[in-house]
Amino acid sequence: MEIPKLVITDIDGVWTDGGMFYDKTNQEFKKFNTSDSVGVLFLKYLEIPLVIITGENTNIVQRRAEKLKIDQVHLGVSNKLELAKSICKNLNITLNEVAFIGDDINDIELLSKVGFSAVPNNSPSYIKNIVDLVLKTNGGDGAFREFVEHLVNKFSSIDNMLLKYFEEKNLTQ
Amino acid sequence: MEIPKLVITDIDGVWTDGGMFYDKTNQEFKKFNTSDSVGVLFLKYLEIPLVIITGENTNIVQRRAEKLKIDQVHLGVSNKLELAKSICKNLNITLNEVAFIGDDINDIELLSKVGFSAVPNNSPSYIKNIVDLVLKTNGGDGAFREFVEHLVNKFSSIDNMLLKYFEEKNLTQ
Amino acid sequence: MEIPKLVITDIDGVWTDGGMFYDKTNQEFKKFNTSDSVGVLFLKYLEIPLVIITGENTNIVQRRAEKLKIDQVHLGVSNKLELAKSICKNLNITLNEVAFIGDDINDIELLSKVGFSAVPNNSPSYIKNIVDLVLKTNGGDGAFREFVEHLVNKFSSIDNMLLKYFEEKNLTQ
Amino acid sequence: MEIPKLVITDIDGVWTDGGMFYDKTNQEFKKFNTSDSVGVLFLKYLEIPLVIITGENTNIVQRRAEKLKIDQVHLGVSNKLELAKSICKNLNITLNEVAFIGDDINDIELLSKVGFSAVPNNSPSYIKNIVDLVLKTNGGDGAFREFVEHLVNKFSSIDNMLLKYFEEKNLTQ
Repeated sequence: MEIPKLVITDIDGVWTDGGMFYDKTNQEFKKFNTSDSVGVLFLKYLEIPLVIITGENTNIVQRRAEKLKIDQVHLGVSNKLELAKSICKNLNITLNEVAFIGDDINDIELLSKVGFSAVPNNSPSYIKNIVDLVLKTNGGDGAFREFVEHLVNKFSSIDNMLLKYFEEKNLTQ
Repeated sequence: MEIPKLVITDIDGVWTDGGMFYDKTNQEFKKFNTSDSVGVLFLKYLEIPLVIITGENTNIVQRRAEKLKIDQVHLGVSNKLELAKSICKNLNITLNEVAFIGDDINDIELLSKVGFSAVPNNSPSYIKNIVDLVLKTNGGDGAFREFVEHLVNKFSSIDNMLLKYFEEKNLTQ
Repeated sequence: MEIPKLVITDIDGVWTDGGMFYDKTNQEFKKFNTSDSVGVLFLKYLEIPLVIITGENTNIVQRRAEKLKIDQVHLGVSNKLELAKSICKNLNITLNEVAFIGDDINDIELLSKVGFSAVPNNSPSYIKNIVDLVLKTNGGDGAFREFVEHLVNKFSSIDNMLLKYFEEKNLTQ
Repeated sequence: MEIPKLVITDIDGVWTDGGMFYDKTNQEFKKFNTSDSVGVLFLKYLEIPLVIITGENTNIVQRRAEKLKIDQVHLGVSNKLELAKSICKNLNITLNEVAFIGDDINDIELLSKVGFSAVPNNSPSYIKNIVDLVLKTNGGDGAFREFVEHLVNKFSSIDNMLLKYFEEKNLTQ
């Protein structure tokens, strides 16, 4: 595979451990991991756009995306493959140029069609069997970051990423 | 055992790790796992009705049940065996046709009377000793899903489940 | 040691993993484990009174105690040994007749003076070294229950506890 | 290294496991560990001032600092090295006299410039490689306390710390 022209990520089970915190009224929490924010940053340095596609329809994901300055967030998506095709069409790229990280049955179709697919270590075995990369990390423990660092090590290097990080830091100060 | 005609599940310690989050006022949280929602789906495909029976009396469980479209939720139940008998009577089935997943002492009577019983891996040893299946997963880590997938593998197959999942997906779009 | 005439328990690090959840305003959460509630029940069957003594001064502990019907809760205690002495005096017993579970430096004095002392597995090694029993369980994972079941196995049996549990259940229905 | 004249600590990933709990509105939680509060206490006994420097800008950290009576809290810091230099200048000490615990890429510059540097066990390998001490504990599991106890064991002893703890306890009662 060449360097991907787009990265798509699922949220629940990837950016979280699948946990959904409910209270007695109408509130809900998700637990994200700040470690994954470095994955978002490294993708920016690799100049690969990032899109969130999730089946859940909750403002929680919107808030996390805003914090990390991710523009493209698609909530409440029942057919991820169709949406990904449509996004690819707009970008004039093919699914083969997409890298996608998911974790469960609603990700199977897209996982099996993209150029590079990955799941966290705690995904079901029958989903692990169909992807290119099974990560060492579980969902919520930095699986997204490990996924991005895999791309970094394949197409650039962590050292390059850190150089860009320090360059940008000096420019903004 | 034939394929069960009813599945009953406990909540705390099965759908959660037993954790009860309290604040300073009147609020409480439980942490569910989205992985278990696939268990609910697979039971639907197996055409086995699902009933929640819990000793706790909290709207948190009601909310989770509504999210997963589970109709039958019994809260604040002190005698699970009696209630299960009454449910069986209404459905014209016997306890021997029920599969039940619990985890602690208030589940013992029902666990020992149903046709198929299971507990998460972190249940007390004296409860593990009386059930048909000790799951590999702990409560809150997808124990309910593992329980359902055990039934799937016994009476159907994951492949069948996925076929039904994709069929239904195409119908609703 | 004879059967203790009083059990004293710390909360943070024993009934929890030491976690303190803070929000941006004035709210705080603790995560308890429903597994420990069976420990409270078994102590009742053993007819050993239970007292909570904690250095923290928060309504969260009060709420948990009320849920589990524990009358004696002492919050914001800086000198646990002095308070324990005073409680013993009122009950006309000695510290040697007390079993205590704590986990950290503010528990050292009381741990070293009671008849039977225990800490969760994740306590500091220099505190583990001074107690009678290092539990297999970590704080928040059911350490209090393991502590009580240790007493149960020493002075009665789990079978006896379950008999009492079923007796009481039948009486109240 | 001589005994440090200043200890600087990061928060997310050190005092927490990197977890950021988001709700649907505007609220956020962090999970601290009461075990680390003993680290704060031991630093006081060692007479080493403690400064919190974090890239995040949230009142959550302020609240935790107030609970533990830590005066110096710097939120929303993009360049930790520059700030640390300025703090050192005011105290008339050098970076070589500073011990710092961080965990991620925004800590690299300061980690590589201080006299003694440490990271939790779950830090990225390329950050572990540049520090003096990789702790056994993960962030949020008491990594900060292990870091302080390392200093205690190097320049004093746990026994001395406990002596001071009991002395102070008797004075205030």
